[in-house]
Amino acid sequence: MPVPLHNVSINTATLGYKASIRETVDAIAHAGFGGIAPWRREIESGAARTIGRYIRDAGLRVSGYCRSTYFPASSPEAWSASIEDNRQALRDAAELGAECFVLVAGGLPNGSRDLAGARQQIADGIAALMRDAAALGVPLAIEPLHPMYAADRSCINTIEQALDLCTLLDPSGIGPLGVAIDVYHTWWDPKLEAMIGRAGRENRILAYHVNDWLDPTSDLLMDRGLPGEGVIDLSWFGNCIRDTGYNGLSELEVFSKLLQNTPNDQLLKKCAASLTAL
Amino acid sequence: MPVPLHNVSINTATLGYKASIRETVDAIAHAGFGGIAPWRREIESGAARTIGRYIRDAGLRVSGYCRSTYFPASSPEAWSASIEDNRQALRDAAELGAECFVLVAGGLPNGSRDLAGARQQIADGIAALMRDAAALGVPLAIEPLHPMYAADRSCINTIEQALDLCTLLDPSGIGPLGVAIDVYHTWWDPKLEAMIGRAGRENRILAYHVNDWLDPTSDLLMDRGLPGEGVIDLSWFGNCIRDTGYNGLSELEVFSKLLQNTPNDQLLKKCAASLTAL
Repeated sequence: MPVPLHNVSINTATLGYKASIRETVDAIAHAGFGGIAPWRREIESGAARTIGRYIRDAGLRVSGYCRSTYFPASSPEAWSASIEDNRQALRDAAELGAECFVLVAGGLPNGSRDLAGARQQIADGIAALMRDAAALGVPLAIEPLHPMYAADRSCINTIEQALDLCTLLDPSGIGPLGVAIDVYHTWWDPKLEAMIGRAGRENRILAYHVNDWLDPTSDLLMDRGLPGEGVIDLSWFGNCIRDTGYNGLSELEVFSKLLQNTPNDQLLKKCAASLTAL
Repeated sequence: MPVPLHNVSINTATLGYKASIRETVDAIAHAGFGGIAPWRREIESGAARTIGRYIRDAGLRVSGYCRSTYFPASSPEAWSASIEDNRQALRDAAELGAECFVLVAGGLPNGSRDLAGARQQIADGIAALMRDAAALGVPLAIEPLHPMYAADRSCINTIEQALDLCTLLDPSGIGPLGVAIDVYHTWWDPKLEAMIGRAGRENRILAYHVNDWLDPTSDLLMDRGLPGEGVIDLSWFGNCIRDTGYNGLSELEVFSKLLQNTPNDQLLKKCAASLTAL
């Protein structure tokens, strides 16, 4: 059963930031989608509060705010600076009305091979943000990234690892902490079904990102497909997510050099068509 | 402590198959290495028995024979044909004196999104080969491949998954079945240390492959680094492996378009230097 468009949010990376945030909001609402996930580059130069109102007035929800400054750093000062950056971003997320702040945790600091140390810095960084997140009412969504990004983008690479981190930092399960599950990053995981089930039982699913894995894949970052273009069984995946009781938006997040060059109105039609064809 | 070269084997993919197998054997032995891991393309046209003798006469061990025909197939007939292919390769492995036959299990059959089905075909395929492997005295080494190869090369993507498969197919633990652990495919794994420990306790480590993950990585297949060029903590990794009691060869397997273009003698010197610098 196709996902109704009003239950779908558009991550603005899909559009490649070709237009102003207001034009982007208008185009997404006009195309019939129900939400948007903006990036900090689109917000920080302006006023988050004003943009948040503009988004709500257009009838859109904010499925998530992208994304954290990377936590692992080469010095304690740089680590602290990342926390301050993330605190400001959390305040902006609250003004935007974002349903979560997406944590892309960061990879190894430049020149480092200390994976365990980077993971510890990530845990400490998330711990440092939890009080702010609770006070602002913006949950932190740890997004496990595909293992091919472990060096440069995130040392959090499986749902199991992200859930273990949630348990460690928020053992009661009532804190502002959960996971963003992206099909691209997780579809290969032998424990996928079990871990989606666990995430649901532990009430941790804050976001669900859709796109597709192309075979072959020509670039590690910018060669994702629209839903249906690749090898991921998205019907099965969506059912697993919904079976947990998750009833939030599905966020279309497609990093693709090819797609970004398409004019926004035309691209949004392609996005809609890809979802209704599922 | 650097690995002595006589404990290191050269996977011939590292050299890009630029010379005949005999010339390659001579060059590897001349450079002071203790083993070789040849590919089927180098063996099947000739006589495995003769080449095996040539390798032994050169004083080299065969750390592994690369590699299985992919198991997942679009029809039962194609699946059966892959089993027959692999049986022949196992006979060649025995004649070569290979210490294991490396199983790169295969990805999704063309056009398929049935990951669970492909994994079942892999399990069935390995089960079908176990009697032959035992009779020939060539253990089957399941090599978990990096998750970025799940679509096109292997749906076995973590050490844990490979070990679970070993337990399923060989519950007694005395069968000809184990794993090949490659640093490139597994370094990112949050459960790496625990799973290397488990692999050791369950007596399953049949091969250990070294190379490095470059940051950035420009190509999904052909952009690996020599040990020390990338971000993997190879000293730590090697210690984990040796702590299990594994005392087999370390196999240098570096798929790199850049390195392949280097003349073999010069490239083997670079390989040796990268290892002694660790």
